[in-house]
Amino acid sequence: MPRYALMVEYDGRPFSGWQWQDDRPSVQGAIEAALARLEPDLPRIAAAGRTDAGVHARGQVCHCDMAKDWAPDTFRDALNHHLKPAPVAIVAAAAVDDAWHARFSAVERRYLFRVLNRRPRATLEAGQAWQVQRPLDVAAMRAGAAHLVGHHDFTTFRSTLCQAKSPVKTLDALEIHDVSGPAGREVHVTLRARSFLHNQVRSIVGTLERVGTGAWPPEAVLRALAARDRAACGPVAPPHGLYLTGVGYPAEPFAR
Amino acid sequence: MPRYALMVEYDGRPFSGWQWQDDRPSVQGAIEAALARLEPDLPRIAAAGRTDAGVHARGQVCHCDMAKDWAPDTFRDALNHHLKPAPVAIVAAAAVDDAWHARFSAVERRYLFRVLNRRPRATLEAGQAWQVQRPLDVAAMRAGAAHLVGHHDFTTFRSTLCQAKSPVKTLDALEIHDVSGPAGREVHVTLRARSFLHNQVRSIVGTLERVGTGAWPPEAVLRALAARDRAACGPVAPPHGLYLTGVGYPAEPFAR
Repeated sequence: MPRYALMVEYDGRPFSGWQWQDDRPSVQGAIEAALARLEPDLPRIAAAGRTDAGVHARGQVCHCDMAKDWAPDTFRDALNHHLKPAPVAIVAAAAVDDAWHARFSAVERRYLFRVLNRRPRATLEAGQAWQVQRPLDVAAMRAGAAHLVGHHDFTTFRSTLCQAKSPVKTLDALEIHDVSGPAGREVHVTLRARSFLHNQVRSIVGTLERVGTGAWPPEAVLRALAARDRAACGPVAPPHGLYLTGVGYPAEPFAR
Repeated sequence: MPRYALMVEYDGRPFSGWQWQDDRPSVQGAIEAALARLEPDLPRIAAAGRTDAGVHARGQVCHCDMAKDWAPDTFRDALNHHLKPAPVAIVAAAAVDDAWHARFSAVERRYLFRVLNRRPRATLEAGQAWQVQRPLDVAAMRAGAAHLVGHHDFTTFRSTLCQAKSPVKTLDALEIHDVSGPAGREVHVTLRARSFLHNQVRSIVGTLERVGTGAWPPEAVLRALAARDRAACGPVAPPHGLYLTGVGYPAEPFAR
């Protein structure tokens, strides 16, 4: 069967997450329903990152196996037609070989966490950024974040539901950007790693928020990490600020 | 009565527009309801720009008269508390003198029109930008726009419902910006004038879209203007791409 890689953008709000569930709307379910309009009896699709309920994506990647050959742009347009009105869009489609796997071939995941840092309640950004009302000290957040970059046991920063075999991961980049957005100040936390533990990004952001507001000193992040104890983590940040922005592969399937 | 200027941000989608209507939700109605929770029997409020249904604002300005003196930040926070859960926020409040009027003292209105220019359907930007699927030629749009800057009879570009006494206005600036947004290419049209006619911005943007897609040559904008005939206008652009971004006053009431 010809295999296709799909780059997917979605607004996570109406979904219970990426993963198919029989009783609730999921992004996977929406895409599989659109695929079923094109060809019957297709196998399940697989994605690089199984985002949680409410988490958005700009560059999620999945793959699907089709019975017939599709011109990639025609395939993308046909899928988008059948995805209406769900807030899910296929932004690119590319033919890949049978050995290519959206999840297992991925060597990098990239995330953005948007924090709207102002006192008046969000209007146009509601559901698309986490609002923190107290002013954030970005220098302190950067000092705290520096303790987390590299190869560590991230037990403190993973959900108790996490199914990964090992809590040891390498966080390749964790940057804090001070951004002037249309609604005022935003603090953008960007992260890059081969793979992440369940709730790792939101656990890290929630902990760094404690540092940004001055509730915790930056060194508290190092102590939390060293504790290897879920109870040492800050409050987990809400899902609606989080975006899966991209996935890296040894050979990039999508034309630039 | 002490008078306060309010800078207001809103998501225009759930509202029938700024203007109060007895049977439909309006931004003015939402703010007046919040004010009524603070003090009884207040006079109506007045705004610099009466935005249409679906039009957003980042920097709408209105004023209100209160019976008692309010510390501006306390007043802003109390209003925001009572505005919940409407997507309306008071981003700033300032005391002004009795002669100051949000509408009649204004000497400049600024608008942004966001166009998302890509083929896949919008997801996170749905309702916050006008999606145009065909690639826009920004140079052609700029050439067309140049004909509209300055002092002109804008009869072609105003709604037949427009109540302004004269169709003659001075458009001080009309710029086309090519922007790389999170969902891909955006074309931002920014406009600045002392005042605008009803539907003037959306009529101009709809006409420039014709030029951007190549359906009309840039000179067609000059011919449309010279016709002084509503029928010569391009299709009116939809409201959800439009933002009232700011209002100018001889003495700026809000602290920077």
